[in-house]
Amino acid sequence: MTNKMSGHSSQTGTRLELLREELRREHLGAFIFLSTDSHHSEYTAEHWKGREWISGFNGSSGIAVVTQESAALWTDSRYFIQAEEQLKGTEFALMKEKLAGTPAIAEWLGRELADADDKEVGVDGMVAAVVEVEALKEDLRRRGGITVRTNFDPLQRIWKDRPPIPQNPVEIQPMELAGEDVLSKLARIRQALRKQHADGMLVVALDDIAWTLNLRGSDVHCNPVFVSYLLISSDRVTLYINKEKVTDEVRAYLKKHAVEIADYTEVSKGLRDYFEYNILLDPTEVCYTLYQQVTRNIVRETSPIPAMKAIKNEREQLGFRSAMLHDGIAMVRFLKWLDEQIEAGVPQTEISVSGKLEALRAEQPLYKGLSFDTIAGYEAHGAIVHYEATPETDIPLQAKGLLLLDSGAQYQDGTTDVTRTIALGPLTEEQRRVYTLVLKGHIQLQLLRFPEGTRGTQLDAIARKDMWREGYNYLHGTGHGVGSYLNVHEGPHQIRMTWNPAPLQAGMTVTDEPGVYLEGRFGVRIENTLLIVPDQETECGSFLRFEPLTLCPIDKRPILPEMLTAEEKEWLNGYHEKVYQLLAPHLDEADKNWLREATLPL
Amino acid sequence: MTNKMSGHSSQTGTRLELLREELRREHLGAFIFLSTDSHHSEYTAEHWKGREWISGFNGSSGIAVVTQESAALWTDSRYFIQAEEQLKGTEFALMKEKLAGTPAIAEWLGRELADADDKEVGVDGMVAAVVEVEALKEDLRRRGGITVRTNFDPLQRIWKDRPPIPQNPVEIQPMELAGEDVLSKLARIRQALRKQHADGMLVVALDDIAWTLNLRGSDVHCNPVFVSYLLISSDRVTLYINKEKVTDEVRAYLKKHAVEIADYTEVSKGLRDYFEYNILLDPTEVCYTLYQQVTRNIVRETSPIPAMKAIKNEREQLGFRSAMLHDGIAMVRFLKWLDEQIEAGVPQTEISVSGKLEALRAEQPLYKGLSFDTIAGYEAHGAIVHYEATPETDIPLQAKGLLLLDSGAQYQDGTTDVTRTIALGPLTEEQRRVYTLVLKGHIQLQLLRFPEGTRGTQLDAIARKDMWREGYNYLHGTGHGVGSYLNVHEGPHQIRMTWNPAPLQAGMTVTDEPGVYLEGRFGVRIENTLLIVPDQETECGSFLRFEPLTLCPIDKRPILPEMLTAEEKEWLNGYHEKVYQLLAPHLDEADKNWLREATLPL
Repeated sequence: MTNKMSGHSSQTGTRLELLREELRREHLGAFIFLSTDSHHSEYTAEHWKGREWISGFNGSSGIAVVTQESAALWTDSRYFIQAEEQLKGTEFALMKEKLAGTPAIAEWLGRELADADDKEVGVDGMVAAVVEVEALKEDLRRRGGITVRTNFDPLQRIWKDRPPIPQNPVEIQPMELAGEDVLSKLARIRQALRKQHADGMLVVALDDIAWTLNLRGSDVHCNPVFVSYLLISSDRVTLYINKEKVTDEVRAYLKKHAVEIADYTEVSKGLRDYFEYNILLDPTEVCYTLYQQVTRNIVRETSPIPAMKAIKNEREQLGFRSAMLHDGIAMVRFLKWLDEQIEAGVPQTEISVSGKLEALRAEQPLYKGLSFDTIAGYEAHGAIVHYEATPETDIPLQAKGLLLLDSGAQYQDGTTDVTRTIALGPLTEEQRRVYTLVLKGHIQLQLLRFPEGTRGTQLDAIARKDMWREGYNYLHGTGHGVGSYLNVHEGPHQIRMTWNPAPLQAGMTVTDEPGVYLEGRFGVRIENTLLIVPDQETECGSFLRFEPLTLCPIDKRPILPEMLTAEEKEWLNGYHEKVYQLLAPHLDEADKNWLREATLPL
Repeated sequence: MTNKMSGHSSQTGTRLELLREELRREHLGAFIFLSTDSHHSEYTAEHWKGREWISGFNGSSGIAVVTQESAALWTDSRYFIQAEEQLKGTEFALMKEKLAGTPAIAEWLGRELADADDKEVGVDGMVAAVVEVEALKEDLRRRGGITVRTNFDPLQRIWKDRPPIPQNPVEIQPMELAGEDVLSKLARIRQALRKQHADGMLVVALDDIAWTLNLRGSDVHCNPVFVSYLLISSDRVTLYINKEKVTDEVRAYLKKHAVEIADYTEVSKGLRDYFEYNILLDPTEVCYTLYQQVTRNIVRETSPIPAMKAIKNEREQLGFRSAMLHDGIAMVRFLKWLDEQIEAGVPQTEISVSGKLEALRAEQPLYKGLSFDTIAGYEAHGAIVHYEATPETDIPLQAKGLLLLDSGAQYQDGTTDVTRTIALGPLTEEQRRVYTLVLKGHIQLQLLRFPEGTRGTQLDAIARKDMWREGYNYLHGTGHGVGSYLNVHEGPHQIRMTWNPAPLQAGMTVTDEPGVYLEGRFGVRIENTLLIVPDQETECGSFLRFEPLTLCPIDKRPILPEMLTAEEKEWLNGYHEKVYQLLAPHLDEADKNWLREATLPL
């Protein structure tokens, strides 16, 4: 793999120089660049990509810290390989989170600033969440009395061509797709707030605002959200938004639902003027600077909206099924095309096939765009969990080995997220073995039936136990919620190793995506998006199960059938038959024949 | 099942009258009786069984609350059936914890005391832990300004024949069994304390004190501990203990290790006089009243000792293997005897067979007593998770159905805990099915290999997934640590549904005890005690696995073999062969023949 960041290292050097000049002027010993925005988004508008601008690392998660003498970037295991590549040739040292010997940021800063004159560290209080600033202050205080300043953003001066906050128009998500109107959602939110002893709340998460108001936008790449705040009190609702984004239609719609409109920048004032007894602010989401504006009592609690949004109503479930049908049609056409291209020896690369897949999805009705940048990793690139091919890294596909393809789209009726690992020709014995172990994990999770109240943390190992026995593992989670024409990563529930108290409930979507990544060799991941549905009631309680929403054949060619149990084979055959029955009526003869072959029983 | 508490209801009435008189005199609206002692023990000396004295309920976990007008008892699902029986005919309402509709104690008190004159509630601050009192104060404050008083114990006046704190002599656990001497343990504790930025600590947990000092006692039924406190500072160690318990030998031993001795009642003074900069107190263990005595800075952190004690050293592991061998010999003799008794039609009951088993264990070398009261539940009694047969509930065993037998012993070289469910004759199809599902769960856990850092919460569902698929479940945890000639329940790790952050580590013991309980019909539980041992190292990390320590055949007669996978059968046959090979050399010909039959491959 070539270094895609050639040329970036000198640019990074210039930017660091500019930054350090600012820091000296402001008497700051260091500055911390987070990867989020004022709305604690996982993916942000370009305007907030300051960490990427200063370091060159563009993964979705990472923190850059710069002192006068040094620079370092912390990121998690998904991005170790990518960050190593992108930081090559820059001053930034890579700090691998959760590995033994990696210092915490405060620990590192304590050492780096031990002899510095300026013992104050800057972080943008309009970006950092309350809990982040509080923890940072406490940690740095313990490390030799370092203080934290939150009211200075050096990027305002040094990032000359910084993109503005987007001003794209907002669109209405129609009732037949949303399934619940704004007034009903507001009533449920207020009821939940009363249970939390709160009179109102500031909604900052962009997908929570979009869900509450049945509106969608296009401010963030792949996420159909719009930059705004929503202030809910017992009898008023105010949307803080750049007015250029509000069309006449949306204005009338908001008026009809008694939602007032104010300018995005007025939210500070809105908080200062808030007149109820108290207000709920989720300290893991609300930024530190806004939190400081509040003059009333603050209820520090979890926002009630993610738990509501996570449970899809009937209309949303119907929408998901329709979106999955269309996504499946595009995937089948793509997989057939890919087989043919490889067989015919037509030159294709990671990027060219990603483009073809995107084009096939774009033909589908209600298509709005990708739900995340396609991950097409051939052989060794498949071992880079969040690999995104660039012209510099792109490699030709050969008629052998594995192509890991993780992709999804936004349709107006649902969001899709599917991973298939595809055999392009002969495989090694290890590839077949690992592929089959990942498939076993994928199937084992879907064979489960589990009692109400079960948390994802309890189920994560079900997808791992078979690969564990052979010494394989993966360091990412097994599953995440998926939005209804919203963000592809959604909470509050998850299926992962770390504790997440949100129980899995009927109506929730969740992915099932175990994998194995062998650095320098290959990667395998198999992912369906699932719906949680009611199962049986017994004297031991009520049970739930998973139903796959994704409709796309799982490549049978790499499977070592003797490693599958009878039950696992039966699941795969049943799933494939369902895929065929649902997709076939929408395919032309050639696609249908290919699909028939791809879905024949093992 | 007959009511074993007949006659108790009128006694409870008299005691409640006495209590209410005290409450009126003290202007208390209510009193809360916890189930623990000053050392936050799970099982306590008789002296601290005030909750049992006032309510008649003798389960290990429960909270009784009494107002002038009402009385209620909260307990968990293990004890629902037992508590219902024992509270019958008394004023106490049963509050089933974690069920929908069950009020929290503070909520209930808020309602009960709404119109009361006395808005203060009492709880014994020498028994309630810091976090318990703090939470209670906060919860009751929110419920209409109810306050909490901690310096009054009504039992001192009304419990006339209250047993004193035990004064049994302390014994030395020899180095060849303990495997690490006191000075080494103290050095490791001090090192751990330094990492927690603490200069010293008060050890309150009785098993932690016994482990640290390599001493054992007999103050608590089935737990070889002695009532005391241990105050560790950077250069002093003081054992607060009733001096009558300290023999000359132990006195010399303590002196040799520079452990000072002070009277048990002096611990308050010891805390007041403690002279270092700070002291670690675990607020989940230390009682509220003692916590208030401290004048220095308090480091509120988890005690470092349970995590050390949990990892058994080589000597302790050897001891476990020896204890398990002797326990297995007793179990085999018992199981053979039981088969013969049932076959011959000799009248036996739950209590009589428990007595026989105890007698057979008592013949074994280094036997010290039971590690908990034997649970022998025949048919419907097997569905009562913590059933303990009494003369009133005892029933004759018949030549059919299932006997659930959960038992264990204290040997000086190790503690045992084993459950077998035994077919006494013909079974129903449901019994065979449920038995096989429980066995599958039991085996699935032991087939696991899992990466270092895994928590028990992640593995709990592995033992449940097969029974879940058929709509069965159990509400208790799957596994707990087991002490080395110490308490049969030991932390910090566990395998259970709720979150427990302590990772499973090599050298830890843990039980594997899934079950199914069908009220009014029967119960099944199968339990081995396991040792966690290192497994393979791969490019994905270091792996661990379980090794069964328990050596006792698992009844094959109820198994529906077609429900077991080939791998599960192989595990069972392998386990049985190991049991036979290790036990046979120590058995006489008849026992050996019985064991050969019981351990033949499926």
